[in-house]
Amino acid sequence: MGGAGGEGPEAAAAHPCPGSRRPQAGRRSLEHHPLPGSAADQLFPGRQRCGPSTSCGFYHDMALRGNRCGTSVDLCKGPHLRHTGQIGVLKLLTEEYARRGFSEVRTPTLFSTKLWEQSGHWEHYSEDMFILQPPEADGPTDCQSDYSTSQRRDRLALKPMNCPAHCLIFAHRPRSWRELPLRLADFGALHRTEASGNLGGLTRLRRFQQDDAHIFCAPDQLETEIRGCLDFLHSVYTVLGFSFHLGLSTRPSSFLGEVHLWDQAEQILQKALNEFGKPWELNPGDGAFYGPKIDVHIQDALGRPHQCGTIQLDFQLPLRFDLQYMGQAGVLERPVLIHRAVLGSVERMLGVLAENYGGKWPLWLSPLQAMVIPVGAEQEGYAQEVQEALLAAGLVGDLDKDPSVTLGRRVRRAQLSQYNFQLVVGPREQSQRTVNIRARDGRQLGERAVAEVVGRLRELQAARVRNAEEMF
Amino acid sequence: MGGAGGEGPEAAAAHPCPGSRRPQAGRRSLEHHPLPGSAADQLFPGRQRCGPSTSCGFYHDMALRGNRCGTSVDLCKGPHLRHTGQIGVLKLLTEEYARRGFSEVRTPTLFSTKLWEQSGHWEHYSEDMFILQPPEADGPTDCQSDYSTSQRRDRLALKPMNCPAHCLIFAHRPRSWRELPLRLADFGALHRTEASGNLGGLTRLRRFQQDDAHIFCAPDQLETEIRGCLDFLHSVYTVLGFSFHLGLSTRPSSFLGEVHLWDQAEQILQKALNEFGKPWELNPGDGAFYGPKIDVHIQDALGRPHQCGTIQLDFQLPLRFDLQYMGQAGVLERPVLIHRAVLGSVERMLGVLAENYGGKWPLWLSPLQAMVIPVGAEQEGYAQEVQEALLAAGLVGDLDKDPSVTLGRRVRRAQLSQYNFQLVVGPREQSQRTVNIRARDGRQLGERAVAEVVGRLRELQAARVRNAEEMF
Repeated sequence: MGGAGGEGPEAAAAHPCPGSRRPQAGRRSLEHHPLPGSAADQLFPGRQRCGPSTSCGFYHDMALRGNRCGTSVDLCKGPHLRHTGQIGVLKLLTEEYARRGFSEVRTPTLFSTKLWEQSGHWEHYSEDMFILQPPEADGPTDCQSDYSTSQRRDRLALKPMNCPAHCLIFAHRPRSWRELPLRLADFGALHRTEASGNLGGLTRLRRFQQDDAHIFCAPDQLETEIRGCLDFLHSVYTVLGFSFHLGLSTRPSSFLGEVHLWDQAEQILQKALNEFGKPWELNPGDGAFYGPKIDVHIQDALGRPHQCGTIQLDFQLPLRFDLQYMGQAGVLERPVLIHRAVLGSVERMLGVLAENYGGKWPLWLSPLQAMVIPVGAEQEGYAQEVQEALLAAGLVGDLDKDPSVTLGRRVRRAQLSQYNFQLVVGPREQSQRTVNIRARDGRQLGERAVAEVVGRLRELQAARVRNAEEMF
Repeated sequence: MGGAGGEGPEAAAAHPCPGSRRPQAGRRSLEHHPLPGSAADQLFPGRQRCGPSTSCGFYHDMALRGNRCGTSVDLCKGPHLRHTGQIGVLKLLTEEYARRGFSEVRTPTLFSTKLWEQSGHWEHYSEDMFILQPPEADGPTDCQSDYSTSQRRDRLALKPMNCPAHCLIFAHRPRSWRELPLRLADFGALHRTEASGNLGGLTRLRRFQQDDAHIFCAPDQLETEIRGCLDFLHSVYTVLGFSFHLGLSTRPSSFLGEVHLWDQAEQILQKALNEFGKPWELNPGDGAFYGPKIDVHIQDALGRPHQCGTIQLDFQLPLRFDLQYMGQAGVLERPVLIHRAVLGSVERMLGVLAENYGGKWPLWLSPLQAMVIPVGAEQEGYAQEVQEALLAAGLVGDLDKDPSVTLGRRVRRAQLSQYNFQLVVGPREQSQRTVNIRARDGRQLGERAVAEVVGRLRELQAARVRNAEEMF
């Protein structure tokens, strides 16, 4: 339930930082492979790693257990993290949430196992959950001393998904039809004890984030909400440059709930898909036991398929949590729950994007937006001013003043590292308060005033264009 | 070590949302009290709660165990979370990090207890840590099946602080003097098994975030870095409207390390404090066993003291993790570590701010920036356009079109809820594409074009002014 995007087949190898080496060229199979020797592995040759160690992240034996650890440490040089894929896509999602009436919520990492019993995850999913050590029976520590014995037997577990917490949010006070649809979005870290053989790069981790949201709505709002979900998918995938196709998975042979509810819901999904206007295929009997769903398959630039987003109806969780709201007629009614995700696992999407762009991140997602390069030592002060102007505008500006390397080689080095733009400053630029700007594809963009360059880069970043180098 | 801001005395009661009732007026004592009956307690009278349940958050029995749970679920109506104190303050910090050359990193929640043994926390702090259940001896689950028996005996624990993870980042590859100072910032969620009697509102939680950063620098960079830390404190506290005073805590009777290193470091701290130009007091012998520190006490609007920020030197962790870098002379040298925080616990700072502003959040932190109020049903469509213009500009715009309540009462209701601005639209405003704007203090600001209002609100938000209502 709600394990949106956590299950599907995936192909992308992780390659989070443009500066790192590409571990393997060409197409990769659909299986999960730990990546072969990254640059960092050459520094620690005795150590087996499950993902690339770049200046954007590495893996460590002490972070979860064993060599293949399933959790990553992000590490970027300079103030880059905000601009890498992860932060860039989260910001895109956050803006969409604001526009579309979603509430971003934060929910705890640890919950009593009672919660998972109530949601049904305990029965089906407890093997995949990280569970805390129970307090010692002979000496309860101070923090547990005020609980009754029965409570003391509760255990805590790290959440593997957000939906039960969102049900608690819905249920914690009486609700009215006026509050619906209630759309709760959560980027909380999720933990799952994935089998180590399944771990790989960024594609399958033991700790990850989803762009997870749950919509609680009245049955007659379902159609509008589903249309909204499809439109949301379309907006985000368009910005990211993915095409996608849709499938409808209907009632399986073993299912929970009433047949007429299923039929009605499937009709609503069909109608929404038809109105959406893109072709879709029917997968009869492929729905989850708790409700029908819309599967979303995206295609990256190389035509490889990835399952990332999902839209799932759920009739069961509202029953299990006895969710109710006061209807317009003054009678208590039960909401329908929609689990939805656009990106799915944010980390995996980062891997997909890295492969998709082949290291050439578009400006708005780029961790390496502009490199300032002084011609000689005399321009270092001015070059630093240019860098500060970039930083003050929220752009990533680095400075390469290495005197042991010629100007030409420094420009080339920044281009090979996939800095979107190189800003060269010599005596002339210094006296005119300008920069000589080039793009990473070798394009010469000429001499421009610093303020103009900063303003234009900000515009191109805000517009999330894919080809800032051409459009500059 | 590095438990910056997690220990000091604190006074603020939690009051996260201006729309909620103020549970208790006037000054609160310096002890931790669970807050008395909030509005939500009246809905669930049988339930004891440890903090306010407002539309910004509530507490639940299943989120960590027991009634006083020490972790909060944030819940905001509409797209508000981004604008509440927590997000606003984090954004401020993130901007400062970019400007000041800090790298934002993300580190895992779970680490092997070996890490805590190496850092020394295991010996002194393990009782305060949440520890995972060891894998079952008779049936290792799939994900652990590829580890040797010795590894299987490792246990995982939730991190109570970030410093050891940051030491891993420093240590994971060879470092050069050119990379120093390395400034790593981390907003990661920390978990500590605080005694339940110590829990209270937002001031002491079992799960919280810090604006935690660690600076690894060469000994001769220490002075510049300390000055940078003091300047950072000053910038942030000025924006938030706090005055502060500083203390220097020096070598305690029981300490680790060499006396001459201590003396040298204390002189550097003294020099930096003197140059900073604000009065400071000496607390001889009050330093931590691992290094001297600068204590920071802020005063809120009511003159109450809070200990939030800290600047601590640490000679021990670099030894324990054997941190080294290649010095300019080609010899391996050991960096000094500075633990620093400005806000300390972000949740507690939110509580301090809520008390400080008494519910009247400044525009840039306000979860309730503007309420659009149509005079009659005919203006509802136009009112919605105005709301959308606000949302598109990244502002919080709500709409109150309740036809059962008079215009005057709706304006008053928005003012009492502390919406910074009320935008009234009648037939005249609709035809002119304007709004009639009022501030929550009753100020009439007259009729203005929608684009002008949106632009001005954005400016005031970006400038983080404290009195947007006067400055509009």
